[in-house]
Amino acid sequence: MSDTALIAIDWGTTTARAWRFDSAGQLLGSRKAPLGIKQVRDGRFDLALAQLLGDWNARTAPMIACGMIGSRQGWLEAPYVDCPASLAALADRVVRTRVERLTIVPGIATIDAAGVPDVMRGEETQLLGAVDPGEHGMLAVLPGTHSKWARVDHGRVVDFTTFMTGELYAVLLEHSMLGRLAAGDPDAIAQDAFSRGAARGLAAGELSHDIFGARTLVLAGMLSPDDVADWLSGLLIGREIRAAREWARRAGADPGAVRIIGDGPLPARYELALADAGIVAETAGPDAAAHGLWRIALHAGLVTAALQPS
Amino acid sequence: MSDTALIAIDWGTTTARAWRFDSAGQLLGSRKAPLGIKQVRDGRFDLALAQLLGDWNARTAPMIACGMIGSRQGWLEAPYVDCPASLAALADRVVRTRVERLTIVPGIATIDAAGVPDVMRGEETQLLGAVDPGEHGMLAVLPGTHSKWARVDHGRVVDFTTFMTGELYAVLLEHSMLGRLAAGDPDAIAQDAFSRGAARGLAAGELSHDIFGARTLVLAGMLSPDDVADWLSGLLIGREIRAAREWARRAGADPGAVRIIGDGPLPARYELALADAGIVAETAGPDAAAHGLWRIALHAGLVTAALQPS
Repeated sequence: MSDTALIAIDWGTTTARAWRFDSAGQLLGSRKAPLGIKQVRDGRFDLALAQLLGDWNARTAPMIACGMIGSRQGWLEAPYVDCPASLAALADRVVRTRVERLTIVPGIATIDAAGVPDVMRGEETQLLGAVDPGEHGMLAVLPGTHSKWARVDHGRVVDFTTFMTGELYAVLLEHSMLGRLAAGDPDAIAQDAFSRGAARGLAAGELSHDIFGARTLVLAGMLSPDDVADWLSGLLIGREIRAAREWARRAGADPGAVRIIGDGPLPARYELALADAGIVAETAGPDAAAHGLWRIALHAGLVTAALQPS
Repeated sequence: MSDTALIAIDWGTTTARAWRFDSAGQLLGSRKAPLGIKQVRDGRFDLALAQLLGDWNARTAPMIACGMIGSRQGWLEAPYVDCPASLAALADRVVRTRVERLTIVPGIATIDAAGVPDVMRGEETQLLGAVDPGEHGMLAVLPGTHSKWARVDHGRVVDFTTFMTGELYAVLLEHSMLGRLAAGDPDAIAQDAFSRGAARGLAAGELSHDIFGARTLVLAGMLSPDDVADWLSGLLIGREIRAAREWARRAGADPGAVRIIGDGPLPARYELALADAGIVAETAGPDAAAHGLWRIALHAGLVTAALQPS
């Protein structure tokens, strides 16, 4: 334990995850707990932190956290940094809790083509951990309830855009006509149905029309009720990819390859749909948030650059 | 009562509505009851019909019905007629229940640009009632849970397309993050918020991105929680209008004017959004289904053409 140089925490809405780094920037271990900011009572983030870290000796190492812990509903608000947002800019704008030695990384903000703000908290750190500061012109996706696509270049998040794909999937399947049509095992992926949905999503169309197709395809015997959920999943992810590709192209970025950052079953679905779209999918390594936090900690002087791993 | 020449019924999923016509095709009265096909128990549509008609003398006049009563879950299935579907084609393909003198109008079907079927039951009759057989090149919308847009020409539904706008609005407001943001009176319409949403919907975009704007606009203090529902309503209707306009244009139709067929609060919202889109909105008269049923009954020989109103 004496070798712990940094404790890094990805502290979200429902879950908190902590990693320990040695002074050479190597991961020594991780802990995870259902201690997201929604679970913390009476603002006692200090108690939640102690519970999360357990027997790790938090008193001897600096701590850095990203995610919703820095939101208005979190421990201490870290105002958004505007895009393009570099590792250095994020490090400049960290905030520090008074009683604990915890540094909090800000989220980032941008403005879409229609002048409407877009925001992320936590994903910026994953992006800057999954994309090496030496890489340029990268397009990355973080699949999820609110999927984020970002252009990352030389340690900067140049711009990003959000799609509520996962939430749409959930509400449509649980509460709409599509859910009443759907049968079958929601965990197994029916690849053919998924790809048929993805093809519909990748084509020009309008979501509120395209989803009605589930009803008519089932009615016409062209889609099995067992396949409705995967068809819908493919449709929504296909539409997201199509829109994100156009978004990247408008910025002059090459959408020939996309790095997928995430875990669980979603990255495999994005790999399938990206292949259907003719886009190369790369999958980022694990612990992207941890690596991003290490890089920001270096820029913030929480750990010394001389000890940075080669 | 002796003058009743036709009883016309719009028999949907939740509601049934009946009208009485005299032999000159004038409406004598109407009745409405929560006797849609979902409410009918043990297939006793005959009892539901008797209850709907009440003291009307159903024994002396022919009866014609449109809507879900002709679906697989209805009294007797009337298979879909393919587009373009004329009054004459619908009249040719009616089915008749055995024990009652009830004629049932079929729904209509089409195939979208991606080869996916689209269907309607009941709306075809409203369309052919709200658009005079002498009119040509009409574009019409039936706003609702599943909005229908159709091109109608000389007593034919040339083609149509469905948007699940109303259902998306309901599930997003009741079950998604947008509902948790929303406050205020859902009945009053905040016209400014509605038009701001419509402008976002009418612009190029992707729904799953655009709706995330509700969160960021509220977060940035640019949208009041009281206005979220109307902003979302405008956004969804705006997107529907944009997609329907493109659909009409691809068919070479002029989307300069649209006839709105419907009642309740929705037509006023479509009028607003159509105006924002620079499209002239005409509002159809009441009882479109009744007039369509009269026209189909004439073609089917249930009433005599000599007595058709001038």
